[in-house]
Amino acid sequence: MKVNGIYTINNEVEFEELASHIGQAVWIHGSIYKIRKMKGFSFVLLRTKRNVVQCIASEQIEIPCEESCASILANVVKEERSKTGWELHIEEINIISTPKEISPIVINQKKVDTSIENLLDYRPITLRNEKERAIFKIQEGICRGFREFLYAEGFTEIHTPKIVQSGAEGGANIFSLNYFGQEAYLAQSPQFYKQMMVGVYERVFEIGPVFRAEKHDTSRHLNEYTSVDFEMGYINSFVEIMEMETAMLQHTMNYLLENYSMELECLNLQLPQIESIPAISFREAKIKVAEAYNREINDWEDFEPEEEKLLYEIIYKETGSEFVFVTHYPSKKRPFYAMDSRENSNVTESFDLLFRGLEITTGGQRIHTYEEQVAKMQAKGMHTELFESYLMMHKYGMPPHGGLGLGLERFTCKLLGYENVRYTTLFPRDINRLLP
Amino acid sequence: MKVNGIYTINNEVEFEELASHIGQAVWIHGSIYKIRKMKGFSFVLLRTKRNVVQCIASEQIEIPCEESCASILANVVKEERSKTGWELHIEEINIISTPKEISPIVINQKKVDTSIENLLDYRPITLRNEKERAIFKIQEGICRGFREFLYAEGFTEIHTPKIVQSGAEGGANIFSLNYFGQEAYLAQSPQFYKQMMVGVYERVFEIGPVFRAEKHDTSRHLNEYTSVDFEMGYINSFVEIMEMETAMLQHTMNYLLENYSMELECLNLQLPQIESIPAISFREAKIKVAEAYNREINDWEDFEPEEEKLLYEIIYKETGSEFVFVTHYPSKKRPFYAMDSRENSNVTESFDLLFRGLEITTGGQRIHTYEEQVAKMQAKGMHTELFESYLMMHKYGMPPHGGLGLGLERFTCKLLGYENVRYTTLFPRDINRLLP
Repeated sequence: MKVNGIYTINNEVEFEELASHIGQAVWIHGSIYKIRKMKGFSFVLLRTKRNVVQCIASEQIEIPCEESCASILANVVKEERSKTGWELHIEEINIISTPKEISPIVINQKKVDTSIENLLDYRPITLRNEKERAIFKIQEGICRGFREFLYAEGFTEIHTPKIVQSGAEGGANIFSLNYFGQEAYLAQSPQFYKQMMVGVYERVFEIGPVFRAEKHDTSRHLNEYTSVDFEMGYINSFVEIMEMETAMLQHTMNYLLENYSMELECLNLQLPQIESIPAISFREAKIKVAEAYNREINDWEDFEPEEEKLLYEIIYKETGSEFVFVTHYPSKKRPFYAMDSRENSNVTESFDLLFRGLEITTGGQRIHTYEEQVAKMQAKGMHTELFESYLMMHKYGMPPHGGLGLGLERFTCKLLGYENVRYTTLFPRDINRLLP
Repeated sequence: MKVNGIYTINNEVEFEELASHIGQAVWIHGSIYKIRKMKGFSFVLLRTKRNVVQCIASEQIEIPCEESCASILANVVKEERSKTGWELHIEEINIISTPKEISPIVINQKKVDTSIENLLDYRPITLRNEKERAIFKIQEGICRGFREFLYAEGFTEIHTPKIVQSGAEGGANIFSLNYFGQEAYLAQSPQFYKQMMVGVYERVFEIGPVFRAEKHDTSRHLNEYTSVDFEMGYINSFVEIMEMETAMLQHTMNYLLENYSMELECLNLQLPQIESIPAISFREAKIKVAEAYNREINDWEDFEPEEEKLLYEIIYKETGSEFVFVTHYPSKKRPFYAMDSRENSNVTESFDLLFRGLEITTGGQRIHTYEEQVAKMQAKGMHTELFESYLMMHKYGMPPHGGLGLGLERFTCKLLGYENVRYTTLFPRDINRLLP
């Protein structure tokens, strides 16, 4: 349709509505994803919001180059051999825009066949690939599933500041910036704020960016990632946090099955069954791996990544679970707000969740009384006067509470079977990458 | 209930379920918000996740101090004079935790009666006030309403990086940081990324933090705020963006009425009626205000805040609308990606939305062809080679598109009738405030 000499875009019909237009001519729009020339006709694959739609063009139709944007007038023709029950016969193509150049990277094959560096350098283009699109639709679905679950469980969603006066995790792995002449930092986690908000709403969550200035250049580290954090009050033990996470993961797997089956199919993906998730203490886990694989234990305070993978293999063999909670991490390696166990103050009421051998969650119970929190900070040599506004909540009354943080990109990575977290990060930030 | 000598928390009954337990004794938990001693009995107001529940304690019951956390065994007694149809008679109070000190700020009156500095300095405590809690529940509701609407309209939710190599808005109002020896910035908006993602999903949105190093110390500026951004492809004009925003706001007002009536009541709030929103060009608006109030026009390129307020008054008198779109802002004052009008290249295909005299949204159509974008950047004296990954999308094909950014805290501020945006920011960041 031309109005004032300009083609207007006819966006009346969405993919989902096409079945109800059989026998009619409709306008649809999208990018020309792929052209397949056959004898006497062509297949034109049109990329719409969520689908790639095959249209058939007779020889008479002039087809613009790939990655052109077009509005197409097509007849919806009944076709029982087609999965959708119809096929589209092109009547007319209006070109809305054409690219200046053809992308040097081929994006319209099953997968983008290039190095990870190219894949990421050309992110604005490579994300247009069907599989790439499916990855981040699934990631959207994960967040939607989490949100739906948490709202139903009475959690309130919050937005906490990312520019902060002091880091929650301590250490050198923190980005600093000049904040109007004062030194400030980028939040490593919403830890302090979500704890404060437990005093307000009892149960809170946030899905937002966190920043770690870690110099690790590995397949599992990012310097900025999306953290799914929740925190809940009135708990008897950190076990309730693990139960809440288990239920959240179960809900989300069902949510994906119900709402993202198309993308799961595109990625050829079987979601893991999550029944109950086994739990093992850190100490037991260390010993179990050492015994099973005849390894020496060099470090009693932390896992080596290799140990996490071996633990997964053992647990999977024993229980069939691809998830395992590791509990009671050494106090030395946990932050100052972690609650020590009453039975053994060398370990904390905390846990990690490993999924297919990779840590995706850290959580636990926090200290909620003022005296205990101040004592632990002093024992760690911290200056409590710098944490006055954090300690305010402890001073004026807090319930026992705990929570967790889950790395969205790591979880997506393991869920989709990738080996590098960059594949499941929209625009990754690592020690060598700040673009695009 | 005592298990191993420790009181366990009985969280079986939620506020919403109490009506179905009339005639029974139930356990509920929460913070002792307020104690009102009467003759022979006391009222104990218990703060739960979302409610403040009145319980009645006979003289025999020992009540812990305010801001103690407690588990309460209470009889749910039928009481027709009560709004809920029941009242709670306390049988037993188990103290879960007690504060070390009593807060110097009174938080359990109708509103927190103190200066804004105190209100913010004591944020972890003052947020426990009923009205303060209601503000941020409404803010949650706004986001939920937006999300529900945008998903239904086929938008995909994305998470884009906040550490970036170059700012979208340009200028000096940008925080910089040292990123492993390289200069990096905090994103002023997800502009570049949401545009790139239009090439991927056609319609995208993000709700996340943005950062502005503005040195303004006013009632409407924050240095970090939550931006609601959406961007959509295949538009004929920026008018479609305004229509989408209007529908989003309408949906959200209904969503709040349906799901947050309790908080609206607590804040004594009437939501604005949103029918159609009037639009006026920037130039016409300048003249209209100048004529109505006999003012001289000193600046033809921007509004003074006073002019925005006066425009609101005129439009409200003329149409009854508390919202007004101002369109066609001068090209000089809009960023390099704004599309100039075909009829007059001194103005852009852009708009602001003013609500009750305050700008809450900036939006418009963007340039989508490579040649036009490069030409405009060069005309502005920019180095296009620094924007290679941004320009990639233009080079390899983009549909006509546009979008907007809405400041969540500003919108909440005006919706709830506050004069300072800090009242509707959970933990504000301004030129003087980095804590809590």
